[in-house]
Amino acid sequence: MDPAKLCYEDVIVGATQTVGDYLVTREAVLTFATEFDPQPFHLDDEAAAKTHFGRIAASGWHTAAISMRIMVDHVLSQSNSLGGAGLEDLRWVRPVYPGDRLSCRATVLEKRRSSSKPGLGIVRSQVETLNQHGDVVQVYRSTGMLAVRDPDSPIA
Amino acid sequence: MDPAKLCYEDVIVGATQTVGDYLVTREAVLTFATEFDPQPFHLDDEAAAKTHFGRIAASGWHTAAISMRIMVDHVLSQSNSLGGAGLEDLRWVRPVYPGDRLSCRATVLEKRRSSSKPGLGIVRSQVETLNQHGDVVQVYRSTGMLAVRDPDSPIA
Repeated sequence: MDPAKLCYEDVIVGATQTVGDYLVTREAVLTFATEFDPQPFHLDDEAAAKTHFGRIAASGWHTAAISMRIMVDHVLSQSNSLGGAGLEDLRWVRPVYPGDRLSCRATVLEKRRSSSKPGLGIVRSQVETLNQHGDVVQVYRSTGMLAVRDPDSPIA
Repeated sequence: MDPAKLCYEDVIVGATQTVGDYLVTREAVLTFATEFDPQPFHLDDEAAAKTHFGRIAASGWHTAAISMRIMVDHVLSQSNSLGGAGLEDLRWVRPVYPGDRLSCRATVLEKRRSSSKPGLGIVRSQVETLNQHGDVVQVYRSTGMLAVRDPDSPIA
């Protein structure tokens, strides 16, 4: 635990921050899809043109992974994160295309101390991923764990 | 639409299949984490030893992406998939470690025709990712779109 980094006590419910400016290259879209999601609409211009995507679109899992990278770079690396437990409701709202630039808008929904582990804080957040037009392309709500700076403080 | 591949009509609610045998190498864990989830417990043996992971563990997003690859290889590539709309409730139940072998157990939960687009079927599934010991490491419920073989058939 690094007390200089963000701890559970520092998290403000309702706070929102928008971070990141991640360029999604065509090469990265093809590389990710080849390894993890080799469906024609992620790999082939002609096949994608016949679908509602209209042209090659990034795998939703690629968008999710990029969003994680943005959150690690700008939020989690400055915090005493202890990992994520999972998500509710991951939705891919709009396609992500090569050339798009992504950012994340994170909002703290709630926080609580673990009743069994006094050093553990649980923070629920909403993370919206936006493209360069400000359109939401993906949204999820996640539950993450964060170290408590003063585990001896009473659990409210 | 390829009528020889799985269509909406062929999907059986309640059916379960277990597919895949995907080796998670240490190199792949480090490569994915370096690109998308550079947190110490995914990258550094010593740092991971101090956490509840005990040793380097795969990013949950890597487990999710691998699960997608397993599902594409064994299920979606043999179907008229039109893409995914999102997930409810993605949970990382147990860590995935280098050397683990993953498979997916997919269960069809429900299906329905789109009321506005007669050619579109909507299928809700549960996908559990298992390690070589048969332990569930990840679970999600997803909603996918699948072409209807006979769009002129009445919508029940």
